[in-house]
Amino acid sequence: MEEVLQKVKKSAFTVASLEGGVKRKILVQMADELIKNSSRIIEENKKDLKYAKENRLSDALMDRLLLDEKRVASMAQALKDIAALKNPVGRVIEGWVLDNGLRIEKVKIPIGVIGIIYESRPNVTSDAAGLCFMSGNACILKGGKEAMYSNIAVISVLQEVLEKNSLPKEIVSLLPDYSREGVHKLIQEDKYVDLIIPRGGEKLIKYISENSKVPVVKHDKGLCHIYIHKDADIDEAVAISINAKVQRPGVCNAVETLLVDDGIKKIILPKLKSEMEKEGVVLKGCEKTCQIIDIQKASKEDWNTEYLDKILSIKVVDGLDEAIEHIQKYGSGHSDSVITENYTVAEEFLNRVDSACVYVNASTRFTDGGEFGFGAEVGISTNKLHARGPMGIDDLTTYKYKIYGNGQIRG
Amino acid sequence: MEEVLQKVKKSAFTVASLEGGVKRKILVQMADELIKNSSRIIEENKKDLKYAKENRLSDALMDRLLLDEKRVASMAQALKDIAALKNPVGRVIEGWVLDNGLRIEKVKIPIGVIGIIYESRPNVTSDAAGLCFMSGNACILKGGKEAMYSNIAVISVLQEVLEKNSLPKEIVSLLPDYSREGVHKLIQEDKYVDLIIPRGGEKLIKYISENSKVPVVKHDKGLCHIYIHKDADIDEAVAISINAKVQRPGVCNAVETLLVDDGIKKIILPKLKSEMEKEGVVLKGCEKTCQIIDIQKASKEDWNTEYLDKILSIKVVDGLDEAIEHIQKYGSGHSDSVITENYTVAEEFLNRVDSACVYVNASTRFTDGGEFGFGAEVGISTNKLHARGPMGIDDLTTYKYKIYGNGQIRG
Repeated sequence: MEEVLQKVKKSAFTVASLEGGVKRKILVQMADELIKNSSRIIEENKKDLKYAKENRLSDALMDRLLLDEKRVASMAQALKDIAALKNPVGRVIEGWVLDNGLRIEKVKIPIGVIGIIYESRPNVTSDAAGLCFMSGNACILKGGKEAMYSNIAVISVLQEVLEKNSLPKEIVSLLPDYSREGVHKLIQEDKYVDLIIPRGGEKLIKYISENSKVPVVKHDKGLCHIYIHKDADIDEAVAISINAKVQRPGVCNAVETLLVDDGIKKIILPKLKSEMEKEGVVLKGCEKTCQIIDIQKASKEDWNTEYLDKILSIKVVDGLDEAIEHIQKYGSGHSDSVITENYTVAEEFLNRVDSACVYVNASTRFTDGGEFGFGAEVGISTNKLHARGPMGIDDLTTYKYKIYGNGQIRG
Repeated sequence: MEEVLQKVKKSAFTVASLEGGVKRKILVQMADELIKNSSRIIEENKKDLKYAKENRLSDALMDRLLLDEKRVASMAQALKDIAALKNPVGRVIEGWVLDNGLRIEKVKIPIGVIGIIYESRPNVTSDAAGLCFMSGNACILKGGKEAMYSNIAVISVLQEVLEKNSLPKEIVSLLPDYSREGVHKLIQEDKYVDLIIPRGGEKLIKYISENSKVPVVKHDKGLCHIYIHKDADIDEAVAISINAKVQRPGVCNAVETLLVDDGIKKIILPKLKSEMEKEGVVLKGCEKTCQIIDIQKASKEDWNTEYLDKILSIKVVDGLDEAIEHIQKYGSGHSDSVITENYTVAEEFLNRVDSACVYVNASTRFTDGGEFGFGAEVGISTNKLHARGPMGIDDLTTYKYKIYGNGQIRG
């Protein structure tokens, strides 16, 4: 393992200095080769599917695992989309000149070696490799064991393209040891690995956060709130709440708890109930809520629960302060929205709620790299440092200072 | 401990929302109160000094520990200097409007609760508290045990000012448990602490990096290089090398290894020897170096050693590639400089060397928040992520996205 990581680290210096045009050209070649080799990839994928069937994976997991011509084509298209992104490397963030004439530039550079640990879908393999490559990083990928053959096939195709371009194939690497111990070793190697991005279940993320010596950018849970203030436009509030809950309930930016202002509870709660129930949403309410609409009673645990399902908890609050207090106590710092026509309430909510994304009069479902216009999404970070919220390839860079002198010495 | 941390976390929301003018006013009050209370602080400091004497601390450590009127006055002045800095909170980093009309602002916000772990000098206590306060963060400080009475006295004065202003005193806190176990608990509490900054010896930093669940910004060693290219201005190269080695040898941005181009070794090595020896620098050379000047032979270990002393290792290299290879292998990614009049060599060095600060024709000693114009320095980060190189109060912030809508839902 250490030998492999050494090679990956060395290859990181090579990819870091590639010009944008070269990176684009290679990504397009990779896309073309994926399509040319799709039958080979699909053959390998069949091995994974066979193994999955033998181990009785659920239909949903089997579907996530499956590769066909169409899915390989869309993996190729994703690489082409990445090839069209702005090259983040070398961008000057700031620049100034000191009194002694030293000229300082703060410049974006690649991070180095990025380890990405994820679950079954094989398309993540080419996406992650492409995103790291375009941002000038080497990567070492660890996909789900159940997609091993598919991942090896995809990576081989990408590596062949690198080699044809006289580049070290380690720029895009798979973790050689696919076991739990392999992952554990990887996250200890802070000498060779600069960043770990875990994507997957809560357990995986917890394990990695607690055990990694390498810095981690987490993609953890989202317990999102919408606070409907008393000066909200009622129809807008209902429409946004519905959208945030049901447009895609299983994702981190879906809303889990509605905070309804006491001043409008009687008007809005019945409307919410009828609209939500039309969409098949199960509601759970606090005591005050249940006095107005006939729904299940929420337990204390509900305020802490990311349902990832068509379930929504509702709490009546006495105003902005109580809403914010609730969000501070139970929220996960992901995405929270206020619905109001009141200027001061909107400003206060935006300033005082300490989440990655804070909204006025919009659905929390917009917390997404694609929606934000980042072109491609690395994920949604729940870190507070380095990268927060939707991550684009810009967030796969760090910076250095370039200092231009003409003989300056310190007095 | 958990109870204290809960209070600190809560107080972080209060300090985060203070306006710049309020923070400045309070910092000036803190400065004034330090001076008014200087006799009380000096009395408490005497207890530390007595304990230090009983435990036979070195004269150097005793001196670092000592507080007198003048030193308290300079602690107060440092707080006033911090009060004059630009308020980083709320600054818009980027802003754009999506096609659907959502307006996004990426805004600087405080990090939350910052734990700072440091060694004996009591002035760090007020500096760290002031820097965290001005950047809108609550802090929990753990100074050296040998400065405990002094630190408690200083913090009490600052807390009295907070309370006079009806603010929670926990905004500026000392770790209640000063033991090793106390530190261990602190770095496990990622629920309450958002960032740990360790400042001190290598052992402390290693322990914290390896054991902290909270993100860490390290202030680790600097193994800095100067590469004297064959097209260097010889006098400039000698002057810069002398400055980088002797102006303050005990600090992380001092040079430890000179890489001398083979093409000028015969001209420059004798000059370097005579100038360095005038300054009392002990030289150690590679084989080729020792063929030209009569100095100690360097062992392999020398290339890995941060001397923090008037010792310098010299290696003859065959050109830019070998110089960069050496820096990649032995450097600590802190500060490295090339001396050359050649445009292409300068550009390549700046682009290919992956250190926090890369210089052309200047001393590595400029890697410093004060020199960079940051006003006050938090430290020099050897992290690759979040903050890299000299850290100002800007680096004690993170960001959030504010999203302004008018009813947008996701389709």
